Amino acid sequence: MGTLVLLRHGESVWNAEGLFTGWVDVDLSTTGEEEARRGGSLLLDADLRPDVVHTSVLKRAIRTANIAQDAADLHWLPVSRSWRLNERHYGALQGKNKAQTRAEFGEEQFMIWRRSYDTPPPPLADDDQYSQVGDRRYADLPPELMPRTECLADVVTRMLPYWYDAIVPQLAAGRTVLVAAHGNSLRALVKHLDGIDDETIAGLNIPTGIPLVYELNDDFTPRKTGGEYLDPEAAKEAIEAVKNQGKK
Amino acid sequence: MGTLVLLRHGESVWNAEGLFTGWVDVDLSTTGEEEARRGGSLLLDADLRPDVVHTSVLKRAIRTANIAQDAADLHWLPVSRSWRLNERHYGALQGKNKAQTRAEFGEEQFMIWRRSYDTPPPPLADDDQYSQVGDRRYADLPPELMPRTECLADVVTRMLPYWYDAIVPQLAAGRTVLVAAHGNSLRALVKHLDGIDDETIAGLNIPTGIPLVYELNDDFTPRKTGGEYLDPEAAKEAIEAVKNQGKK
Repeated sequence: MGTLVLLRHGESVWNAEGLFTGWVDVDLSTTGEEEARRGGSLLLDADLRPDVVHTSVLKRAIRTANIAQDAADLHWLPVSRSWRLNERHYGALQGKNKAQTRAEFGEEQFMIWRRSYDTPPPPLADDDQYSQVGDRRYADLPPELMPRTECLADVVTRMLPYWYDAIVPQLAAGRTVLVAAHGNSLRALVKHLDGIDDETIAGLNIPTGIPLVYELNDDFTPRKTGGEYLDPEAAKEAIEAVKNQGKK
Repeated sequence: MGTLVLLRHGESVWNAEGLFTGWVDVDLSTTGEEEARRGGSLLLDADLRPDVVHTSVLKRAIRTANIAQDAADLHWLPVSRSWRLNERHYGALQGKNKAQTRAEFGEEQFMIWRRSYDTPPPPLADDDQYSQVGDRRYADLPPELMPRTECLADVVTRMLPYWYDAIVPQLAAGRTVLVAAHGNSLRALVKHLDGIDDETIAGLNIPTGIPLVYELNDDFTPRKTGGEYLDPEAAKEAIEAVKNQGKK
């Protein structure tokens, strides 16, 4: 059975500015580029060589994969991209400041939008400057598939078909599969893999730029619940940092 | 019918040093990165948006595509890679200095190796430091498919199946297809497209970093023989420069 390697993209320009991003196609910050480079170096140091790469269709995940592959001298790997690996669509919050939103709507509403499993933020209007309706990369999505907002439950639902159809067959063939994606699409996958319940998942944060490795059993369950980070100490520190987002 | 866009990678570190490269996985020079960026800007300026990308499995072509896509804000494009788009395998000349080879073997032999259609250089030994035998990226190639040297005729033979099976169906579906590859794999494709005979192809040079656009007829022949460069003046100058390689 194959090996699954999850890599959350490094800091984006909007992460740095404390804005909700979602499907807005924001680039990596310089810090984010460095995190991606570290991710690639960690793969190299661990002698962990992916056979294939999967990314979302958002540039912060794609560039993270590109930079990590650059650092690991693995440019040639076959790569597949899918909107199903995109970050959670943040609805009407896309482009909004996290701290301002917290101040305006209060701690409780803020945490519901950020961490509730099944309550999405209000939908984003199609004519909003941060809407992705009409973006050429989603031209193959029929209207009913194109999200205007998502909760984590929605992400699980739209992510799983890609897991089953694109990734599992490669793992079954014994491949080492690298998935470069986002905080919430990876949380959705980890929830599925580790069988985390709808409440507990709220407390799970995945750090940026540190490969998370799952060895899998024959039934595609993890050999070790939670997998293993290639740099466990750095992962622990980074998880704390994510928890404190929007608190400034 | 779709549109075909050919992009030859920018200058590599070994181009700059005047060495034969072939299948050796040499990176772009700083000049090569700039050429790739120009390629992406030219696509943007011409409002020419590829739907899909194809590259070889060599990093100088892959990074050219990545950098051009970066410049054109087209990170999300689906990408396929194949060894069939690789540069010509230069056999025993890989890693050798072009000017020294010219001096050692004489003008006539040098030009036969560089430009003869059907005479390959001597084969590269499997234990040579510049051999690709055993490289993980070619693990799926049975021994009889793994080249030790190639003439341009060999490149045409191994490139055409990829043209027919991977690229033509996308063109038939009306797609704009970007192929980021190498001097000789692109010469092989242009020879096929434009019906250039085995002698005339020797005189054809494709400049680096300037997209060459072919609009195609229903039978996949070019509407205009030779296609059109997005920057015809720069292309003309660059073609002259390639002709003079190894003359210093």
